[in-house]
Amino acid sequence: MTDEDERFLEAALAQARIGLAEGGVPIGAALVVDSGVLAVGRNRRVQQGSAIRHGETDCLENAGRLTAKTYARSTMYTTLSPCSMCTGAILLYKIPRVVIGENATFLGAEDLLRAHGVEIVVMESAECKQLMATFIAQSPQVWHEDIGED
Amino acid sequence: MTDEDERFLEAALAQARIGLAEGGVPIGAALVVDSGVLAVGRNRRVQQGSAIRHGETDCLENAGRLTAKTYARSTMYTTLSPCSMCTGAILLYKIPRVVIGENATFLGAEDLLRAHGVEIVVMESAECKQLMATFIAQSPQVWHEDIGED
Repeated sequence: MTDEDERFLEAALAQARIGLAEGGVPIGAALVVDSGVLAVGRNRRVQQGSAIRHGETDCLENAGRLTAKTYARSTMYTTLSPCSMCTGAILLYKIPRVVIGENATFLGAEDLLRAHGVEIVVMESAECKQLMATFIAQSPQVWHEDIGED
Repeated sequence: MTDEDERFLEAALAQARIGLAEGGVPIGAALVVDSGVLAVGRNRRVQQGSAIRHGETDCLENAGRLTAKTYARSTMYTTLSPCSMCTGAILLYKIPRVVIGENATFLGAEDLLRAHGVEIVVMESAECKQLMATFIAQSPQVWHEDIGED
């Protein structure tokens, strides 16, 4: 963990809070390059009827077309452990570092990221967990749908 | 390969042809459920400035929110071997079968799909290869960007 990690995770958390207020899955992300937030994003399953806009992928979409050299200097901040799709997006663009708010609610493909040399930091954020607990209590089916389960 | 595979790959190929005509990366996809095309999609990097709309993910987005039970009965047709991101999307939604036009231009994470029990069929389509060869000759940098390379 670096001194910056709490500050940049906060940018992802702010997106997750907006998501919850919109009735959406409260997962947010921020892409940081050279110590600045290049883009933020949040899960849009409910808001846009989207199957592919998870926090991380929405963030990558909002960042627009970037070169490999830019991704190589980036860190992805996400409030929840990345699912297979978001893991794959991180691997596609060779993002070298991922800071995760929490992985207790859902443990994604962190082992696959590590196997490809991606640095993983888990912050164990109480607020990240609380946002998910609140949402899952009120909309369990949407949450299951979001992770490809019945 | 089944009798239907050539027919449904054609739906993906039609999308790839449209993509090339639009100046985009000519990769198309079709999601087939119960022997019917539920959605099609194509790479939109150029057309929409998109970092996350590959053929397969655009197709999943166009399909909208589906239940796990629907994905469980689906086959993803794609003109090119799925990259890490699209592989991850296929794994997230537990799509059990992927039919690939060709994997000579680019070999994606087929081993990871197989390791998760996904059935893979490679059609070795000459037209799928030709579309990619045409595009890469005219826009090599866009192609490299699309697969996260310099």
